[in-house]
Amino acid sequence: MNGLMMDYPLTLQHMLWRVERLFDKKEIVTKREDTLHRYTYADLSGRVAQVGNVLRRLGVKPGDRVATLCWNNYRHLELYYAVPCMGGVLHTLNLRLFPDQLEFTVGDAGDSVVFVDKTLLPILDKIAGRMPSVRQIVVLNDGGPLPPHKLGELLDYETLIAAEKAECSWPAVEERAAAAMCYTSGTTGNPKGVVYSHRSQFLHAMCVLQKDSLGMSESDVLLPVVPMFHANSWGIPYAAGLAGTKLIFPDRFMGDGQVLLDLAEQEGATMLAGVPTIWLNLLGALEKSGRRLPKVHTVICGGSAIPRSLMEGMDRVGLRMLHAWGMTETSPIGTVALVRSWIPPEEAFNARLKQGVPVPGVEIRIADITTGEELPWNGEAFGEIQCRGPWIASGYQNDADPTKITEDGWFRTGDVATIDPDGYVTIVDRTKDVIKSGGEWISTVELEGAVMAHPKVLEAAVIGLHHSRWQERPVAYVVPMPEYKGQVTAEEIREFLAGKVATWWLPDEIRFIDEIPKTSTLKFDKKALRNTAEPIAEDAVPSPVQGGSARE
Amino acid sequence: MNGLMMDYPLTLQHMLWRVERLFDKKEIVTKREDTLHRYTYADLSGRVAQVGNVLRRLGVKPGDRVATLCWNNYRHLELYYAVPCMGGVLHTLNLRLFPDQLEFTVGDAGDSVVFVDKTLLPILDKIAGRMPSVRQIVVLNDGGPLPPHKLGELLDYETLIAAEKAECSWPAVEERAAAAMCYTSGTTGNPKGVVYSHRSQFLHAMCVLQKDSLGMSESDVLLPVVPMFHANSWGIPYAAGLAGTKLIFPDRFMGDGQVLLDLAEQEGATMLAGVPTIWLNLLGALEKSGRRLPKVHTVICGGSAIPRSLMEGMDRVGLRMLHAWGMTETSPIGTVALVRSWIPPEEAFNARLKQGVPVPGVEIRIADITTGEELPWNGEAFGEIQCRGPWIASGYQNDADPTKITEDGWFRTGDVATIDPDGYVTIVDRTKDVIKSGGEWISTVELEGAVMAHPKVLEAAVIGLHHSRWQERPVAYVVPMPEYKGQVTAEEIREFLAGKVATWWLPDEIRFIDEIPKTSTLKFDKKALRNTAEPIAEDAVPSPVQGGSARE
Repeated sequence: MNGLMMDYPLTLQHMLWRVERLFDKKEIVTKREDTLHRYTYADLSGRVAQVGNVLRRLGVKPGDRVATLCWNNYRHLELYYAVPCMGGVLHTLNLRLFPDQLEFTVGDAGDSVVFVDKTLLPILDKIAGRMPSVRQIVVLNDGGPLPPHKLGELLDYETLIAAEKAECSWPAVEERAAAAMCYTSGTTGNPKGVVYSHRSQFLHAMCVLQKDSLGMSESDVLLPVVPMFHANSWGIPYAAGLAGTKLIFPDRFMGDGQVLLDLAEQEGATMLAGVPTIWLNLLGALEKSGRRLPKVHTVICGGSAIPRSLMEGMDRVGLRMLHAWGMTETSPIGTVALVRSWIPPEEAFNARLKQGVPVPGVEIRIADITTGEELPWNGEAFGEIQCRGPWIASGYQNDADPTKITEDGWFRTGDVATIDPDGYVTIVDRTKDVIKSGGEWISTVELEGAVMAHPKVLEAAVIGLHHSRWQERPVAYVVPMPEYKGQVTAEEIREFLAGKVATWWLPDEIRFIDEIPKTSTLKFDKKALRNTAEPIAEDAVPSPVQGGSARE
Repeated sequence: MNGLMMDYPLTLQHMLWRVERLFDKKEIVTKREDTLHRYTYADLSGRVAQVGNVLRRLGVKPGDRVATLCWNNYRHLELYYAVPCMGGVLHTLNLRLFPDQLEFTVGDAGDSVVFVDKTLLPILDKIAGRMPSVRQIVVLNDGGPLPPHKLGELLDYETLIAAEKAECSWPAVEERAAAAMCYTSGTTGNPKGVVYSHRSQFLHAMCVLQKDSLGMSESDVLLPVVPMFHANSWGIPYAAGLAGTKLIFPDRFMGDGQVLLDLAEQEGATMLAGVPTIWLNLLGALEKSGRRLPKVHTVICGGSAIPRSLMEGMDRVGLRMLHAWGMTETSPIGTVALVRSWIPPEEAFNARLKQGVPVPGVEIRIADITTGEELPWNGEAFGEIQCRGPWIASGYQNDADPTKITEDGWFRTGDVATIDPDGYVTIVDRTKDVIKSGGEWISTVELEGAVMAHPKVLEAAVIGLHHSRWQERPVAYVVPMPEYKGQVTAEEIREFLAGKVATWWLPDEIRFIDEIPKTSTLKFDKKALRNTAEPIAEDAVPSPVQGGSARE
């Protein structure tokens, strides 16, 4: 017996209805080199219709992949709406991938059209002639001549739009139809394509607006510094359309704290969103200038864990960070570090530093890394986070890496975490990095944090290497601060760690290097470290005394 | 081409997962005669499992209707979860229906089991022997002997529960499966059954938690005074399970402002929800006692329009009302009277008095009452509100009244409204009440408001009666305040209205009566008025001078 409720499809066309009917006055502002581009949701609505007509004229058919290689700007937003509402699939190319990876993602997705910011033509040019599926390339250009390139004939976005009506008859779209694609950054092997549906995007946006999620509102002014080509842009473009939030796009000027400060201040931002590095830059600009952003009530932070010192610094300048966790495969919102009402005030700061509690719509569990058995939420046991829900991936484009889905249908995130009795997730490692020593687990992330707290240390990465007795033992690669280069000793660091971590967690070796190798998305490339590492000199180090709990 | 996202069914079992895993400490408090019943979400979770097992033991099968005749209390909440999660359909019987209507709804739904509060046994007893589909009746009893009745053998809820384990293997449920039923109050003809699906309930709850909707949060403490048998309880039981909100149930003590004040104060309520009459009582208790409720940030108000004087009074005592509009067929949230960011402060109060703007997930339009043509959002044109969305009814139980769905699939609400360019809905009448005079529309609701603003008038209802020249003309039925009985004249009221409404809106006759007839839900019964009304004495009144805009 079914309910007698409408079979209203959950598609992004609903957002378009709201953009057009309810928020015509609201603004969208984009930073340009020396000026600001400024228009309204009414303008957005009209231009989205024009882009829809352009896509139809270019021969884009339902299910066709349409790629973008763009920064955060209003034209990218137009494509975020026009492509899926026309039945196409928006594939946001990650401009930070290496050329071979970029070529792979275009081919793997089978992109038929590419829309590219003029400033990013040189990146696309690196794979000129290596995109056999691509029929047309359209340049988003603020004016002026194009740089030299080998990409053949290019179409001009504004010229195409100018020829079209500002009304579009959108096709009927089913809610499970593909809406967008985003590739993982591929720290191991090729990037993998995640394919979002209209339904998943709709539901994710419904979650983002919740007070106990990101809490976006019509009354907010949001400056999204998270790149629109990363992890589904955190769902912000569609959540904004649903809520009517004013948006401030930084275009390519994301790395400069001063620029972000000016933008946020001039346009009255109330919410900011980005990764920790961005907020380090902003914090620097605030502290240097003495300026403040009193209108900002929330700084959404994801992508990697928030360093304690960063959140302390942001608290000092009156900016409240909201830590969220997720990944490309989770659309991305999975958990948000709310302070539950029963948390005592003195523990609130620590709660905010955790990855947080699952949002409505997402179920999580932790599973033993070896056996897959579900582990208790006691804040001690740690295992792989697995999750399920209507905006969690059930697989990848072209069936890449089917091992990421468990037999009972949960997504294996690869993140290793504890969950405490209050439901707070705390990530301690990645499954491929965590070390198993004598049957017990050692968190490389915790160990790195402890080493990096040493005042003479700039960066540290810990990997596990083979050991004849303990199976694996930790080895730390340490980059000293420039002023202490050659003046830090392994003994000094080992002494510093004593009492801060369990004795048997102490690294067998501490190896000083000039730089930690990094991936295209600037994460530590531990795979590269492991591939080139010297074996442990087992005679040279004392055997650890190991026993008891892994987290004694 | 489909997205590669999980086919996670949107069912109420997800809320149950959250109740069990995330909110075990949170409280649910229920008012009893002299004490409070108090337990936690952990208790709720265990007892819901027990009730699930009870239902299985009683032979409840997927799709079976299970009725409740209960006030707002923790046991009713248990049934709100256990019945749909077991695959049954929760049918909340409206205890205010007349016995014949109650009998009709039980039979129309085909209820197989009825759960009834001990205090409501006398109501069920009135239809004893007239419920052929009902196999079992279970009494929810706080202890003590039952009143005399003719209902035959009764089962005891607590005895049944005590025999069951606090773990339940819930069946797999599809998202479009029926979850709950609620009947309209039936001001004309028989009540009509609305059948909610798991999907509609899930999506509606996702909306309720949004900052720009009702904005319920884990940190809130909610006192729902809206009966759990009215309009799907405004979705509060499921929204609370999703968010982890502490609930305070008033049981049957809803009408006493003093009791509500005590409950809200003692339990730290931050949100209240109910119809205007309830807030009139609470306001009275606040003004009389001089007490205040500083923790309450929002008083959700729906069911009928908020009188200006009530919202002014509530503002004076520091209680901010949030006006919402909807109906049984809309689950019920359709619009919420948010103050959009661009509304100037001096217009904010008026914006809050309107029915509001559509929430994410709901599309609305207004259609000409005669032609069905879509009307512009100019704040002037008024027509029937039609809506569509995933939690809007597509029909009724047993195919009652199929005329409520338009040919293109929108739900016809029967409410007549204007929509202004900002998207604010203002209801002016019901389609069956609005008067067409000389080709122009007259809003009986506006006219009644104008008459009731007269200091000597207690109540007034306006109906349209046949007129040979103007087709229809308004006639006002007026109840004077007791102290002015026999001392108000028609001329006095007509003079009072002059200048406040258009000349041609002035009622042709003003008829003084002792009481306006009311429906079972205490709304003006204009049908009864019309059925017994004397025709207009056309010779006795001057012809109105009519022309120009309907809202000149």
